[in-house]
Amino acid sequence: MTTAKRDTYTPETLLSVAVQVFIERGYDGTSMEHLSKAAGISKSSIYHHVTGKEELLRRAVSRALDELFGILDEEHAREGSAAERLEYVVRRMVEVLMAELPYVTLLLRVRGNTGTERWALERRREFDHRVAALLKDAAAEGDVRADVEVRLATRLVFGMINSIVEWYRPDVPDGRAGAGEREVVDAVARLVFGGLRKAS
Amino acid sequence: MTTAKRDTYTPETLLSVAVQVFIERGYDGTSMEHLSKAAGISKSSIYHHVTGKEELLRRAVSRALDELFGILDEEHAREGSAAERLEYVVRRMVEVLMAELPYVTLLLRVRGNTGTERWALERRREFDHRVAALLKDAAAEGDVRADVEVRLATRLVFGMINSIVEWYRPDVPDGRAGAGEREVVDAVARLVFGGLRKAS
Repeated sequence: MTTAKRDTYTPETLLSVAVQVFIERGYDGTSMEHLSKAAGISKSSIYHHVTGKEELLRRAVSRALDELFGILDEEHAREGSAAERLEYVVRRMVEVLMAELPYVTLLLRVRGNTGTERWALERRREFDHRVAALLKDAAAEGDVRADVEVRLATRLVFGMINSIVEWYRPDVPDGRAGAGEREVVDAVARLVFGGLRKAS
Repeated sequence: MTTAKRDTYTPETLLSVAVQVFIERGYDGTSMEHLSKAAGISKSSIYHHVTGKEELLRRAVSRALDELFGILDEEHAREGSAAERLEYVVRRMVEVLMAELPYVTLLLRVRGNTGTERWALERRREFDHRVAALLKDAAAEGDVRADVEVRLATRLVFGMINSIVEWYRPDVPDGRAGAGEREVVDAVARLVFGGLRKAS
């Protein structure tokens, strides 16, 4: 893909604008007209970069999915006990969510009306299953409690992590909750693994 | 408020239909026309019951808020150690969320464009602060870990609980995750207080 010299837009900056518009208006509620206005370039300039809004959606959710699946290939996600790998993956999920906030936010809002949306939901489910498998292994190794069903525990842990998109804002000093990235990662790891109750 | 004998609609059934439409289309995207079609009654019949869609929204979110605030007045939320009261409140929050699923779902999606929405957001914040205060007291009494900042811990715990609206469906036998109400309540309490790590 080549970038037109006559405008300052790159596929990357166009993507970033599109993601904001998708989040604000919803993907269904966004037209090429909306994208054109938000980006300040003509529709034909957009078509110079992409075939349409669905390609922009696919690129945006791919970016989030690639980062998330990438975690599973990292050394600490592949070596050590299942409980250690799980804790590493949970911490990295929170980091990726904060680093790629708009992309992950969009991924979490995908509903499934188009082929791209259904594909994204399928990939999300696949990622959930990979993490659930780690949790299951950790329970089998005796390091994780076995009195909460694996799928239910996975849903609840993902629920806690994904809820961060609702309030974390990197442009506010230390995020909106008065929490820096490191503090959020540590808090999630402590709560997910140790819970609120003080270790006696 | 009186109910017209000429239709079978009560304010209660109209409210239940309106909540479904608000959830599906978003409050902003819902017109009286949409409500009229979904309810199968004329707009003038709707106006017989309410002044407009904002009154329906207010009634719907009030129902969720009344149930949530009601928890704080219950005996076990007022007596015992802060940690015991907190655990009681967390369990009851999950119960209320599942029992009043569409109403709580709508409450969680409120964005703040109208007076009613801003009022609902303010009431939600007030509820969050009440629970955060309990958490703070429990930490002061030494029963809850003090190494996660109270507001951050509250946000994450609420994030886990609120995420249940994304997947729990009471009309599916035992919910979509294969989890019954009691199992979900126990799972949340175990994870929030004990975490995933097996007690050694």
